[in-house]
Amino acid sequence: MRKYARVSATIADLLRKRSLQFPRLLSSSPILDHPSSSSSSSSSMSSSSTHPVSLGTINEKVLKCEYAVRGEIVTLAQRLQEELLAKPGSHPFDEILYCNIGNPQSLGQQPITFFREVLALCDHPAILDRSETQGLFSTDAIKRAWEILDQIPGRATGAYSHSQGIKGLRDTIAAGIEARDGYPADPNDIFLTDGASPAVHIMMQLLIRSEGDGILCPIPQYPLYSASIALNGGTLVPYYLDESAGWGLEISELKKQLEAAKSKGINVRALVVINPGNPTGQVLAEDNQRQIVEFCKQEGLVLLADEVYQENIYVPDKKFHSFKKISRSMGYGNEDITLISFQSVSKGYYGECGKRGGYMEVTGFSPEIREQIYKVASVNLCSNISGQILASLVMSPPKVGDESFDSYSAEKDGILSSLARRAKALEDALNNLEGVECNKTEGAMYLFPRIYLPVKAVKAAEAANTSPDTFYCRRLLNATGIVVVPGSGFGQVPGTWHFRCTILPQEDKIPDIVSRLTEFHKQFMEEFRD
Amino acid sequence: MRKYARVSATIADLLRKRSLQFPRLLSSSPILDHPSSSSSSSSSMSSSSTHPVSLGTINEKVLKCEYAVRGEIVTLAQRLQEELLAKPGSHPFDEILYCNIGNPQSLGQQPITFFREVLALCDHPAILDRSETQGLFSTDAIKRAWEILDQIPGRATGAYSHSQGIKGLRDTIAAGIEARDGYPADPNDIFLTDGASPAVHIMMQLLIRSEGDGILCPIPQYPLYSASIALNGGTLVPYYLDESAGWGLEISELKKQLEAAKSKGINVRALVVINPGNPTGQVLAEDNQRQIVEFCKQEGLVLLADEVYQENIYVPDKKFHSFKKISRSMGYGNEDITLISFQSVSKGYYGECGKRGGYMEVTGFSPEIREQIYKVASVNLCSNISGQILASLVMSPPKVGDESFDSYSAEKDGILSSLARRAKALEDALNNLEGVECNKTEGAMYLFPRIYLPVKAVKAAEAANTSPDTFYCRRLLNATGIVVVPGSGFGQVPGTWHFRCTILPQEDKIPDIVSRLTEFHKQFMEEFRD
Repeated sequence: MRKYARVSATIADLLRKRSLQFPRLLSSSPILDHPSSSSSSSSSMSSSSTHPVSLGTINEKVLKCEYAVRGEIVTLAQRLQEELLAKPGSHPFDEILYCNIGNPQSLGQQPITFFREVLALCDHPAILDRSETQGLFSTDAIKRAWEILDQIPGRATGAYSHSQGIKGLRDTIAAGIEARDGYPADPNDIFLTDGASPAVHIMMQLLIRSEGDGILCPIPQYPLYSASIALNGGTLVPYYLDESAGWGLEISELKKQLEAAKSKGINVRALVVINPGNPTGQVLAEDNQRQIVEFCKQEGLVLLADEVYQENIYVPDKKFHSFKKISRSMGYGNEDITLISFQSVSKGYYGECGKRGGYMEVTGFSPEIREQIYKVASVNLCSNISGQILASLVMSPPKVGDESFDSYSAEKDGILSSLARRAKALEDALNNLEGVECNKTEGAMYLFPRIYLPVKAVKAAEAANTSPDTFYCRRLLNATGIVVVPGSGFGQVPGTWHFRCTILPQEDKIPDIVSRLTEFHKQFMEEFRD
Repeated sequence: MRKYARVSATIADLLRKRSLQFPRLLSSSPILDHPSSSSSSSSSMSSSSTHPVSLGTINEKVLKCEYAVRGEIVTLAQRLQEELLAKPGSHPFDEILYCNIGNPQSLGQQPITFFREVLALCDHPAILDRSETQGLFSTDAIKRAWEILDQIPGRATGAYSHSQGIKGLRDTIAAGIEARDGYPADPNDIFLTDGASPAVHIMMQLLIRSEGDGILCPIPQYPLYSASIALNGGTLVPYYLDESAGWGLEISELKKQLEAAKSKGINVRALVVINPGNPTGQVLAEDNQRQIVEFCKQEGLVLLADEVYQENIYVPDKKFHSFKKISRSMGYGNEDITLISFQSVSKGYYGECGKRGGYMEVTGFSPEIREQIYKVASVNLCSNISGQILASLVMSPPKVGDESFDSYSAEKDGILSSLARRAKALEDALNNLEGVECNKTEGAMYLFPRIYLPVKAVKAAEAANTSPDTFYCRRLLNATGIVVVPGSGFGQVPGTWHFRCTILPQEDKIPDIVSRLTEFHKQFMEEFRD
C-alpha cells in the first residue's frame, strides 16, 4: 500500500515538473494523469491487510498502467446507468450516451448483413444443405460460407487453427491487401489476432527489454500504446502532433524527440503512427508518409502502423495509403524497412468490436525473429475463428455482380456518409462554443476539441483533486449523461485541455446531444467565468 | 545472436546440472529442454544483420519462453503434411494424426448442435422472426437466443461488452457455478476471457514482479504455465507429482519445495493445481484437495486452480469437485483464501477450441486488487462475444423437458463414453509395449506414458543434439505420422522420459494408431537395443 502511494506520488511529481520539451521521457507512462484513481483506491485499502496480495505486492507495471477510455469517467457512467435503472428520473437525463469509445454497434449501428449471414452459416454448417436456408440467406453468403469451410481443415470451425490463423483466410486477406495497395502481400506475413490490441501487445513484448527501451508515440495517442508500453516496462517517447496544423506530424519534431531520448540513454526501437489519427482524426498526406518511412529507415526504427481506421475517411481530398504501399512505392522492400500494419474488424464501416477480429501484417523481420513472434502467438494457440472469418470478409467484401453487392453497398455507404455528417455536425457545434476549438475529423471516429478553461475552473479541479479536463468531463456526464474521455488520458501539451468524443451516436440523436452539450457548456462557463 | 546462444547454453548447463531436489528453481523456465530449437535458429541467423531487430536485441523473456505443444515436432508435422499434399506417397503414411494438443474438433469430433444453433442465431438475429427459422432451429435454441440477446445492451452482439463480459451472461455462469457447487457465486467475480490462457496471463502479470517471485507448478505441467511465467519474468518453482502413485500430489512435496524456494530467497506467491491433470490425467481426491486448500491458507498463497477439464472424467470412482466448493465446505470464505478458478469452452465434451471462450472466477482479492485486474482486462476491451455466449451455454446447457435435451444428452454422452473407451484402449496398448508404463487416464484428454529408452537411443539422441524423448517423438512422427509431444516440454523427473498423447483421434482410427505405434516401437527398440 505504501509503495503504491509512493508510485503515484512519483508520477504526480513528474507531472508537476513536466515541461513541453521532454516531459514524459523517463517514466513509463507518466502522461496519464489520474490523481483521483489513486485516491479512490486508497479509500478502500483498509481491507487489504487480510489478503496475501496487496497493492504494495503486485507488479508495479500493472499499477502504472492506465487505460482512460475505460477509466474513472466510464466507471462513473456505469454507476449512473444503474441508478437510472433502479430509480428512473434520479438524474437530469434518461439515458447514458457512451461517446467514450469507438463502439458503433453499442449505439445502434447495424451490422453488415452479408458478414453476419456468413458468420451464422459457418457457426452452424449443418443448415447449409437445408432447403429453408435458401430462403433465409443470400446465395453469395451461402457460397462464401462453403468456400470458407473448405479452407478450414476438416471444416472444423470449432478447432484451434494454425497459430497465425487459418491459412486460406490469410490467403484471402493477403489478396485483399494486394488489391488495396497494388503490391504483393504474403499470407505468411499475416498474424490473425483477437482485435488489434493483442497484436500491439505482442510487438511491445518483443521489442521492450527494459525501461531503457523507448517507443516513439504520438501525443495525443490512443491509450492502448501507453498501457502496453507500461505493462511491458518500457519508456514512451512522446512526439507532439501540431494541433495548429490540423494535428500535423512534423519530421523535425520526430528528430528532436529521438535525439533527446538518445541523449538520455534511451534506446528508441520503434515509431508508432496512427493513421487516420486516434484521437485526432487527421489523415496523413502521402508526402508526409514518405518522410516517415525515410526517417524509420535511416534511424533503424520499426514502424508500427496503426491502420485500423483505413476505411473511415470523410473528406474527398484525403485518401488512405497504407505504409506498406508507400514504402514499396519508394522502392523499399523487406531488407530496407521493418513494418507492422495493424488492422481490426472493430472499426471501418463494419464496426464489429464484439467479434474481436484483426490481423497484423509483419514485414521486414528476419526468419528467426518471425519464429519468436510465432512462438508468442502460439502460447495463446490462436485467435477466435469467427473473428478470423470476419477479418477475411472485411478484406474481401461482396463484389459487383454478387447477389449481396447492392444491399452491401447501400449499407456501407449509408453508414459512412452518415458518419461524415455526424462528424461535421458535432465539429460545428463544438466550434460554436465559447473557448472551444475543434479540428476537422478527416477520418477515424473521434473529435478532440481543445477547451480553454477559466482559471476558476482549473482551481476548482485542483480543489477536487483532479485534472481540469477530468473535472469538465465529470461535470458534463453528471449534467447530461454524455460520456467523453479527458484529454489527459491521451496526452496533450501541458497546460492545454481537451476531451475525446466519438462521432458515433445515431444521427437522430445528434441534435439533442448538441443542445445538451451547448447548454451544459454555457452554464459551466457562466459558473466559472473569471 | 550471440546473446541467444548464451542464454541457451545457460539453460542447457542448468539442465545438465539439475538434480531431483531443486533442479529448476533459479531460472525462469529451465525445465524446457529444446537444444534443437536454438540450433535451428542459428542456421538461419545469417540474414539478421541487415535488420534493426535481431535475436540479440529482443526481449530475453520472449527468447526464454517455450511452448512445446506447438514446438518443433509440430512444425515438422506441418512440413510433412505439406509434403504429403504436394507429393502423395512421399511418406510411409497418408495422413498426419495430431495427438499433440487437446483439439477435439480438428480430429472429427462434432460440435454440440444446441450450442451452435444458439451461436448462429445470435450472430444473425435478423432471422429470428422469420418463419423458415422455426423449421431449421430447435424451439429452445430460438428461445435461448432471445434470452441472451435480451441480456445484451441494445441486443448488439457486435459491440464491445463490459470489460469483464456481458453482465447477464455472467449471471448465468454464476448460477451454473452455484448449481454445480452448492455454494453462492457472484457474477462480479467472473471475468470472461478468450479461452483460459489469457486469464492465466492476467494473473501471472499481476503477481510476478521479478524473478524473485515464484509460482509453484506441478511437474509435469501444461506448458502454458512455464511460458507465462517466463514471459512475465518470474521463477517456476516445481513440485513433482508422484508417478508411482498415479501422479499423486503430496503435501510434503509442496512443503519441501516451498521451503527450498524460500531458502533461496524466492518469494512464492501462488500455487498452480491442474485438476483433472494435464498432461497426467489424474483426478484429485476430495481429501487431497482439502489439504491443498489448507496449505495455501496457511502459507498465504494464491491458489490458481486450472479446472478446464471439469467435465472430462472417465472413471466411476472419481468425481470433480471445484476448489471453491472444497474451500467453502471447509468454512473458508473470501477473507480466508484467494482462489482463482479457470474454465474454458475448449475442453469438456464440447471441445470448442476455436471459439476462444472461457472465464476465471476470482475470489478473495481486496477491492483495490480487483480494480487492477479489471484495468488489465480493460486494456483489451473485452473477450469475443461468441465465446462469451458459449461460456454461458456450457455452464447452462439444455435441461430435462427442453426440446433439445434428449439430442443434447445423446451427443454429450456419446462423446464422453467414446473418450473413456479411447483412453482405455490407448492406455492398454501403451502398457503392452516393451519398456513403457502408462498410468490410467482418469480425466482430461491425455496419456503421459513413461518410456524406458535403451542407452543406445539416449546416445543417438545426444549425437543428434536433442533430448532422448524428442528423438523418440521425431522418429515416431517420421515413421507413422503420429504427432505427440516430448515429456521434456512438460517437465519430468531428470533421467526419466515420457511423451504426451491425446486420447482424441476418432474411435475408428484407434486400432490403426495402436498398430502403427506398436510396430514403430518394436522396430525402435530392436534398432537401439543395448
